[in-house]
Amino acid sequence: MPQKISSPSFFIGKGDDSLISFGSGQPDLPPPKGAYSILKHYKAFKYGLIQGEENLRSSLAREYPNAKPEHFVITNGASEALDLVLRVLSRPGGRILLPRPYYYSYPHNVLYAGMRPAYYDLDKNGKIDFEIFKKAVQGCRAVIINSPSNPTGTVQEIATLKKIERLCGTLGVYVISDEVYKDLIYVRKNYLIQGEKVVTVNSFSKTYAMCGFRVGYLYSKNIEVIEKVIEMKTHTSMNTSIVGQAMALEAMKSPRSYIAHHVKIWEERRDMIYGGMHDLGLELWKPEGAFYVLPKLKNPNRVVNDLYYKYKMIAYDGTWFGAPDRVRFSYALDISKIKEGLRRLKTFFGGEYKKY
Amino acid sequence: MPQKISSPSFFIGKGDDSLISFGSGQPDLPPPKGAYSILKHYKAFKYGLIQGEENLRSSLAREYPNAKPEHFVITNGASEALDLVLRVLSRPGGRILLPRPYYYSYPHNVLYAGMRPAYYDLDKNGKIDFEIFKKAVQGCRAVIINSPSNPTGTVQEIATLKKIERLCGTLGVYVISDEVYKDLIYVRKNYLIQGEKVVTVNSFSKTYAMCGFRVGYLYSKNIEVIEKVIEMKTHTSMNTSIVGQAMALEAMKSPRSYIAHHVKIWEERRDMIYGGMHDLGLELWKPEGAFYVLPKLKNPNRVVNDLYYKYKMIAYDGTWFGAPDRVRFSYALDISKIKEGLRRLKTFFGGEYKKY
Repeated sequence: MPQKISSPSFFIGKGDDSLISFGSGQPDLPPPKGAYSILKHYKAFKYGLIQGEENLRSSLAREYPNAKPEHFVITNGASEALDLVLRVLSRPGGRILLPRPYYYSYPHNVLYAGMRPAYYDLDKNGKIDFEIFKKAVQGCRAVIINSPSNPTGTVQEIATLKKIERLCGTLGVYVISDEVYKDLIYVRKNYLIQGEKVVTVNSFSKTYAMCGFRVGYLYSKNIEVIEKVIEMKTHTSMNTSIVGQAMALEAMKSPRSYIAHHVKIWEERRDMIYGGMHDLGLELWKPEGAFYVLPKLKNPNRVVNDLYYKYKMIAYDGTWFGAPDRVRFSYALDISKIKEGLRRLKTFFGGEYKKY
Repeated sequence: MPQKISSPSFFIGKGDDSLISFGSGQPDLPPPKGAYSILKHYKAFKYGLIQGEENLRSSLAREYPNAKPEHFVITNGASEALDLVLRVLSRPGGRILLPRPYYYSYPHNVLYAGMRPAYYDLDKNGKIDFEIFKKAVQGCRAVIINSPSNPTGTVQEIATLKKIERLCGTLGVYVISDEVYKDLIYVRKNYLIQGEKVVTVNSFSKTYAMCGFRVGYLYSKNIEVIEKVIEMKTHTSMNTSIVGQAMALEAMKSPRSYIAHHVKIWEERRDMIYGGMHDLGLELWKPEGAFYVLPKLKNPNRVVNDLYYKYKMIAYDGTWFGAPDRVRFSYALDISKIKEGLRRLKTFFGGEYKKY
């Protein structure tokens, strides 16, 4: 009897060629060539600044309005940025408001930081209902906003985000804005959430396909938070990999066409998987950003197990993301594989799934 | 009026040529050439295993007795290893026993993990007095052992370490053994602390001069701890930089002569600075490992300020390491600079210091 699948980590390292993975959320397209160009003659080895290399922070500052290098801390991916900011904001009994469905690490990060997650549900369109948010946010220490969202693929309305900025500003609630998919939006430009108590979490992983190098950052005009993060990082990991930072700097020098070209590819894949699932009769949101679909399905854990053991397909149980009636499919893979995956799904829905 | 120096971070980024830095503890000699050889054709970019690359863990397993790849987790330097293990061992009100003088991050790491540091003093030779240790360890959740020690430069007696192994085993107290200087010992081979509740923290930073790449690891036969660390790292930073790990693997392939050659250089420098300071009449321990001397000095903060502002020398206030009557000098620098530093110190002791 096969092992029952209980978390995304089950799939780590499982990747033979006949397997089609709609699992892990990482670009399959390579980073800009420039990122590798610096490696040939790379010779540095000493500690870097805990805050991150000055040249990389200067380059980032040019991408944000009225930003300065001192507003950034370079981190081991967005994960460490999130971990550090939650830890420095930690208060005994503090509650952190999360949208549901949520990125599956959020509740863990909140608990690891010694606080408690609180939740509100996105509406039937995968959007924030401001009235519901308004009630839920009262008394919270901070709120995590994730637009575009992993796993929903939705992008929040600018009007809503502005209302959240104002409300949290008035209440003195910190906004941690996870914008790691800011460059992968199909419907509009990214809206940067701003404010005195706003901390933006971002990464080079998705924009420049550099997941494995673990270079992310946080950005805030709140110097007190920045300084506390640097102080903590001094003791918990020191500088982020100097070679990873050098690669990230070179990646940022690539022409905007690198990103535009990728978005076009993502959009084709999005159309393929969304159209295909829609034709199979599934109820799902049309992705506006990122690279995930989250169709409604009965008994998602059984679906995930059947797909893996009977159809050699990896998909993630929505339960892991706070969506116990859905399954997440990442479409970060070649269009031919998406097609084959849809074919297998059709067989599955015509067969096993009918008996659920 | 110059800014008063209050922590090691004051010196970060301060490094003009006339300045002699006995500050930061990092090798000035370069990593093995092999570490860079893989960069030329490096093309990977995807997420790696959270636990660390299998080939690197296999290579490490060959260096430890009866070890297997699954006993290791590759981390963002020893700092992250320490942070993660303290966080997974965290209990409300838990006390972590630290030697004094201690590595300056330890108390911070303990507090960040939601526990409290407890201290015992090393004896007048910079060694652990087992009877004192025995009393202090009662009721503690874990103890951190650091041999060779930063900042004392001392290596603990094997007989004492064996007694600590036995006592902690009996008491059920975890031993976190920070052995990052294990390959830089002048007096004997390293003694690996072992046991069911032992977690060894180590790094490629000192042995292979790879500080900036931030590749460290923890090693334990306690699979429960290993699994909890992996689970936490999944959410707090994911895999350690894949390119850093590839470089570390190549570094491990260098001949043992790389390390032996370096130890010889360190020993010459040790003799130079220890002899020089001894001749200046300072009271200090002769380093048995690592690359620090910690002479007794009145008013260490004033010493550090005077040396920096009047003599263009960086040294660290012992207070930052729990030694308020000492100053730490790292001798990770060229012998000509050590000589010049000793010359400046002689002038300082003949001048300003007399008026303290």
